[in-house]
Amino acid sequence: MAMKQAATAAIRAFSSSVPSQSSPLVRHLHASAGSKKIVGVFYKANEYAAMNPNFVGCVEGSLGIREWLESQGHQYIVTDDKEGLNCELEKHIPDLHVLITTPFHPAYVTAERIKKAKNLELLLTAGIGSDHVDLNAAAAAGLTVAEVTGSNVVSVAEDELMRILILVRNFLPGHHQVIKGEWNVAGIAHRAYDLEGKTIGTVGAGRIGKLLLQRLKPFNCNLLYHDRLKIDPELEKQIGAKFEEDMDAMLPKCDVLVINTPLTDKTRGLFNKERIAKCKKGVLIVNNARGAIMDTEAVVDACNSGHIGGYSGDVWNPQPAPKDHPWRYMPNQAMTPHISGTTIDAQLRYAAGVKDMLDRYFKGQDFPAQNYIVKEGELAPQYR
Amino acid sequence: MAMKQAATAAIRAFSSSVPSQSSPLVRHLHASAGSKKIVGVFYKANEYAAMNPNFVGCVEGSLGIREWLESQGHQYIVTDDKEGLNCELEKHIPDLHVLITTPFHPAYVTAERIKKAKNLELLLTAGIGSDHVDLNAAAAAGLTVAEVTGSNVVSVAEDELMRILILVRNFLPGHHQVIKGEWNVAGIAHRAYDLEGKTIGTVGAGRIGKLLLQRLKPFNCNLLYHDRLKIDPELEKQIGAKFEEDMDAMLPKCDVLVINTPLTDKTRGLFNKERIAKCKKGVLIVNNARGAIMDTEAVVDACNSGHIGGYSGDVWNPQPAPKDHPWRYMPNQAMTPHISGTTIDAQLRYAAGVKDMLDRYFKGQDFPAQNYIVKEGELAPQYR
Repeated sequence: MAMKQAATAAIRAFSSSVPSQSSPLVRHLHASAGSKKIVGVFYKANEYAAMNPNFVGCVEGSLGIREWLESQGHQYIVTDDKEGLNCELEKHIPDLHVLITTPFHPAYVTAERIKKAKNLELLLTAGIGSDHVDLNAAAAAGLTVAEVTGSNVVSVAEDELMRILILVRNFLPGHHQVIKGEWNVAGIAHRAYDLEGKTIGTVGAGRIGKLLLQRLKPFNCNLLYHDRLKIDPELEKQIGAKFEEDMDAMLPKCDVLVINTPLTDKTRGLFNKERIAKCKKGVLIVNNARGAIMDTEAVVDACNSGHIGGYSGDVWNPQPAPKDHPWRYMPNQAMTPHISGTTIDAQLRYAAGVKDMLDRYFKGQDFPAQNYIVKEGELAPQYR
Repeated sequence: MAMKQAATAAIRAFSSSVPSQSSPLVRHLHASAGSKKIVGVFYKANEYAAMNPNFVGCVEGSLGIREWLESQGHQYIVTDDKEGLNCELEKHIPDLHVLITTPFHPAYVTAERIKKAKNLELLLTAGIGSDHVDLNAAAAAGLTVAEVTGSNVVSVAEDELMRILILVRNFLPGHHQVIKGEWNVAGIAHRAYDLEGKTIGTVGAGRIGKLLLQRLKPFNCNLLYHDRLKIDPELEKQIGAKFEEDMDAMLPKCDVLVINTPLTDKTRGLFNKERIAKCKKGVLIVNNARGAIMDTEAVVDACNSGHIGGYSGDVWNPQPAPKDHPWRYMPNQAMTPHISGTTIDAQLRYAAGVKDMLDRYFKGQDFPAQNYIVKEGELAPQYR
């Protein structure tokens, strides 16, 4: 696949003009040798690494592919040091062929880094979501960008349902009472509700959104979804969710709103002050999609005013969230670091998916079609 | 109903021996006047009372039945002061006819209190579970004990599913990182799992257990249940849960164990050191049933050793849990005060159920059959 693409790019370059330093031709001529330099950027586990033999998603675990890669003569560098001009990643930018990273500890692949990375052919996300990559720059440079679609959709959907329940049932104030040696049922109960009978709307009903709706089915809620496309009628009937063509018309109906849309130019800052104001007063919002879909300050203000009754998610802008990120300090938040897609089960799946794509890349084979974010200079439809 | 029972008791007393001070006859002769003294023991809401017009389950809300009771000439005393000889409740024990209380802030009705309560006819639980009542003493005294069966089964089942997810996915360490200004994905991920594919067993598959299993269905788990009786085959097939006749044989199979059995003489201390040792190492336990089903210290020891990988519930022994209750301080706990059955939705349902039973009591009508815990001197089967 990558070879085929490299060839295609080379042909395009040949038939157009004189190859420049940053043209796909130069890039792919560099990359034609058999041995590849592969760099993985993951979070470091330190003392936790040894606690679980299946903990493959960290620097120490290295996706469990080191032996396999090295036995084939490839070079495999793994680091968590990804920021600034003096970081470990930066040292390898000029000659790496493949960069693997995760949404949990993303290596931001800017246009500038792409320009410097003369040998770069392939950007793989161990997980889902490639918004840490400047996709237009990657497409223009003839790179392939792919994720392990489906590897952690169940993980994220389960986590979303957990967060819905945590907010609806007002779990955290009760737990904090326990820790503080208190007992005040009223302090919890006055805003604790059943999920049953409430209206839940998802903005986006792709793979994760659909899995969430399926899991919500037995809770006897009123389920709504907004997306570019209607769900297949058979599945829609089975789930019992109602399509809302106009997102802004759906918002005031929802007791709980779940964000399940990728971060694109169209969704960046989608939930700004004006859009949040359209939601029902006291709305509970769950966002495991991407932090930048929300206007950070608008969320803080609405939590402070009570217009948002609770906000939970595992995505932030930027990541890692700095110590002074205001979402750490706003009322009624049930936030965590970016974790939902990196359960041990998910790690095993996305490690296997990365290995499979690397294997196909070495052999010049295509990836599973749904994995592509950028292929042959074009963005996948949901990223356009 | 209460009238009918009083009559039955009177006949029994007449046909046996000379009536004593504490005999059902004396008790029910006292109770024959039209105007009743009804005492409600609920938790106090203080500043939270005014925050939600539907917050009826607290002292201030008084189940929303004061006007209705007083308009019919009944006296209605409501308090949260329930412990010791000088408490408000104790003052009314000698002449109350009806005592309403909740599992969330239970008035413990001991044999001694029953002996003192010469006019007492009816003990109502606003919610489910009457283990705060000495049921044998209540039966011997010819009292009626009833709960609002079904009023909060959905509330509790939802809460159990939330707790399963919180433990399986290791939510709390992540949230605590956020509060403390940290970001350490590995510290969470090394023991975060998907629920999918795990084995969940419930000890008890009554109303709550069945609702939990139904809600677990789309998560693609391996579902097991132990109970005295098999679930109706049609429902069992629909839920896809497997019956385990021998509880001790089920325990080592379960990644997650949920306690859904009432507290009875048979289940008190059921999960002692030996039984916990039969569970899989690292088992996650959810208990929203009753704290006393567990041996308190055995749970602490197993959490400390890691044999229990996580413990979550909202029930304690005693309640309110004292400041030094060891479950507040054991590792990997996701405890709250007793809250799952007192959501605002549940409060509205059990307040309506109590009102309905009081209305039937005043009119001498039977209660819905499933509400009885003690009727005509006999305990309901699940309490025997």
